[in-house]
Amino acid sequence: MKPPDNRSPRPSRRGFLASAGGLAALAGTGAAAHAAPGATASPTEPFWGAHQGGIVTPAQAHSYFLAFDLTAAKRDDVVALLRAWTAAAARMTEGQTAAPLGDKLDAPAPDSGEALLLPASRLTLTFGFGPGLFVKDGKDRYGLAAQRPEALVDLPRFNGDQLIPARTGGDLFVQACADDPQVAFHAVRQLLRLVYGAGEVRWVQAGFLSDPSNKSTPRNLMGFKDGTQRPDKLDQVVWTGAEAPEWMRGGTYLVARRIRIALEHWDRMEVGFQEEVVGRHKYSGAPLGKEKETDALDLDAADKDGNPLIPESAHVRLATAASNGGAQILRRGYAFNDGVSFTAERWPPWRQGMEYDAGLLFLAYQRDPRTGFIKIFEKMSKLDMMNQFVTHTGSGIFACPGGLAKGEFLGQRLLETA
Amino acid sequence: MKPPDNRSPRPSRRGFLASAGGLAALAGTGAAAHAAPGATASPTEPFWGAHQGGIVTPAQAHSYFLAFDLTAAKRDDVVALLRAWTAAAARMTEGQTAAPLGDKLDAPAPDSGEALLLPASRLTLTFGFGPGLFVKDGKDRYGLAAQRPEALVDLPRFNGDQLIPARTGGDLFVQACADDPQVAFHAVRQLLRLVYGAGEVRWVQAGFLSDPSNKSTPRNLMGFKDGTQRPDKLDQVVWTGAEAPEWMRGGTYLVARRIRIALEHWDRMEVGFQEEVVGRHKYSGAPLGKEKETDALDLDAADKDGNPLIPESAHVRLATAASNGGAQILRRGYAFNDGVSFTAERWPPWRQGMEYDAGLLFLAYQRDPRTGFIKIFEKMSKLDMMNQFVTHTGSGIFACPGGLAKGEFLGQRLLETA
Repeated sequence: MKPPDNRSPRPSRRGFLASAGGLAALAGTGAAAHAAPGATASPTEPFWGAHQGGIVTPAQAHSYFLAFDLTAAKRDDVVALLRAWTAAAARMTEGQTAAPLGDKLDAPAPDSGEALLLPASRLTLTFGFGPGLFVKDGKDRYGLAAQRPEALVDLPRFNGDQLIPARTGGDLFVQACADDPQVAFHAVRQLLRLVYGAGEVRWVQAGFLSDPSNKSTPRNLMGFKDGTQRPDKLDQVVWTGAEAPEWMRGGTYLVARRIRIALEHWDRMEVGFQEEVVGRHKYSGAPLGKEKETDALDLDAADKDGNPLIPESAHVRLATAASNGGAQILRRGYAFNDGVSFTAERWPPWRQGMEYDAGLLFLAYQRDPRTGFIKIFEKMSKLDMMNQFVTHTGSGIFACPGGLAKGEFLGQRLLETA
Repeated sequence: MKPPDNRSPRPSRRGFLASAGGLAALAGTGAAAHAAPGATASPTEPFWGAHQGGIVTPAQAHSYFLAFDLTAAKRDDVVALLRAWTAAAARMTEGQTAAPLGDKLDAPAPDSGEALLLPASRLTLTFGFGPGLFVKDGKDRYGLAAQRPEALVDLPRFNGDQLIPARTGGDLFVQACADDPQVAFHAVRQLLRLVYGAGEVRWVQAGFLSDPSNKSTPRNLMGFKDGTQRPDKLDQVVWTGAEAPEWMRGGTYLVARRIRIALEHWDRMEVGFQEEVVGRHKYSGAPLGKEKETDALDLDAADKDGNPLIPESAHVRLATAASNGGAQILRRGYAFNDGVSFTAERWPPWRQGMEYDAGLLFLAYQRDPRTGFIKIFEKMSKLDMMNQFVTHTGSGIFACPGGLAKGEFLGQRLLETA
């Protein structure tokens, strides 16, 4: 096969013109919108604002999550990367290419092009910093150690953790959410091109939801409605306030968990047992003993023998704020479906073979992980009946700064004032 | 963690009633449609007919492909499986559960439930038989060896093949295509439950297309329009006729190839070089030297020095019927995006690290693979300039019987007359 340097004749001038003509038609005034000329206005989500997009934004249908480690030697290199990211991200959320395409045939394009003519598809890009930005292997690489928020703790080891190093951690993450999977992947791909030489991919995860425009609560891969309970006081639960370092105000903390679900095992369980595990009726979504999905959980309800209607180790009982001293998180999960992998079952008859590597990329946003995910999951990881069907195989914790004022770059308040 | 047999008290009668009530509301006359009562009619694709769905059906946005090996001992076991598959598949393409849910709490549900209330989403299910159904390890397990079509050859080893055994082959395949990824996966999951004990998963592949309702030709992950050329005489190109065994008439042969694309490498290539590799202009989609996407390929066009405008080793030149004695296939590919895996680059500077395991699940349908994919790809695998960016990592060949008359079961004409 021919290497790139030993290639066929250059395109003719005519070819160049045809290409440049096509380009000009796409490029308009230099900003090549994905949307076709004359198409109806494409739905977009704001990039600039008090908070980052993709956190309380109504869920889009697809997601692509990337965590990577910085290898940049100096803080200035990180600043340059985040400036470039901000410019590209702002353009792409408006449905534009990562940078104007220009008309050079003798240079790589600044955008790989697979989202040309596609609508913005409500693209959001959400960013956050892992512990490794502040201190890595005991080293304060970028002079930022003093700015590490107290709340950005290293996650403890939880009961049952089976974390795979190649799916865990990261100095920086970005998650693209969009209603088109090609738009979501495209956005992360352009950002990753800008990282070249300054970092290395650690892990990625593509995800999906069934049509989120459907009005009912979506069902997860376990076949149960997921997301019935949602905190209503976002300012208290999600967004940081005066307790956070100045650069983190209006931000939030993400705990990401890649949770594999033993679907083959789950599917062989009796419906009644599945309902006890979850604590809700499968088809209606109502709490056990209630009739409607929206009926409140009654943790004290008992049958005539005094046994609780919602078992002590049911998932909803252990997850609810009332069982955790009021602790709450904002859940924003995406199903994942990574094919099959060789698995030895841990239940009778201990069959082994190719089984689904599918489950949930669980994203918990909160004002403080110590009083949010960590507090809740310390107990759940030990007691939740659902644990026999799920395995946490990846993990990360990140500080997501507040939203950007127009002209500001991502992390500027951290990187310029520290 | 409690094992299933040592569990909390049974749900109360009240719980049972609430659950059964929810169920009844969903179940209607016993056939639990995904679609909510009163919802507008959900778009469906026909299951019964002269040809199977999912082949010439306009492409849906999502796909889940499964290939598995039969372990069933007797032909009757295969018949039982395919009868059960047919019943479940017909229901699911209409937006119903794989089987009526019933009201038992003390048994596993016959449908895992994650597609309840979702529309049918144009679900199609496409089936085919691999060589191993007819002869496996030299053994005629099911007495079908004499029915193996001549056209169902074992694929030759092609130049550059890097096939992974765990992504290659299979005695049977099924592909679900739907406009909702959860509906596609759900359908295959229910079918696979029916295989339990009669077969073992070999490989699976989830795939997607950017919104196929978009009117323009979709771009693939290389950023080029893909699918401009499409055979118009489907009867000649796709569907088998009198040359095929009786049970295969109205059917077709699938060659599936999982093609990883070195996106990182591709993105660093000059636009002009990418266009030479493909043989088309990147932005307009026009053949090199032409102006419009729909302009015909002119393989003889040359510049003033006599060099061909479309290089001798350009992808479109090698793929087109005129270069292959008229050979054509119907392409029906889906992009795949399986995260990242550790990769040693095969180009300067021979970097190694985590790189995209993304690309194209290429599905070629044709009346005879010997004069279709095999003929075309024998040459392309040696000469196509694109080969330096793509690697075939998985493969399969399957005989897809014709469509089913209502009441018939999949493969009946093969399994009952042989």
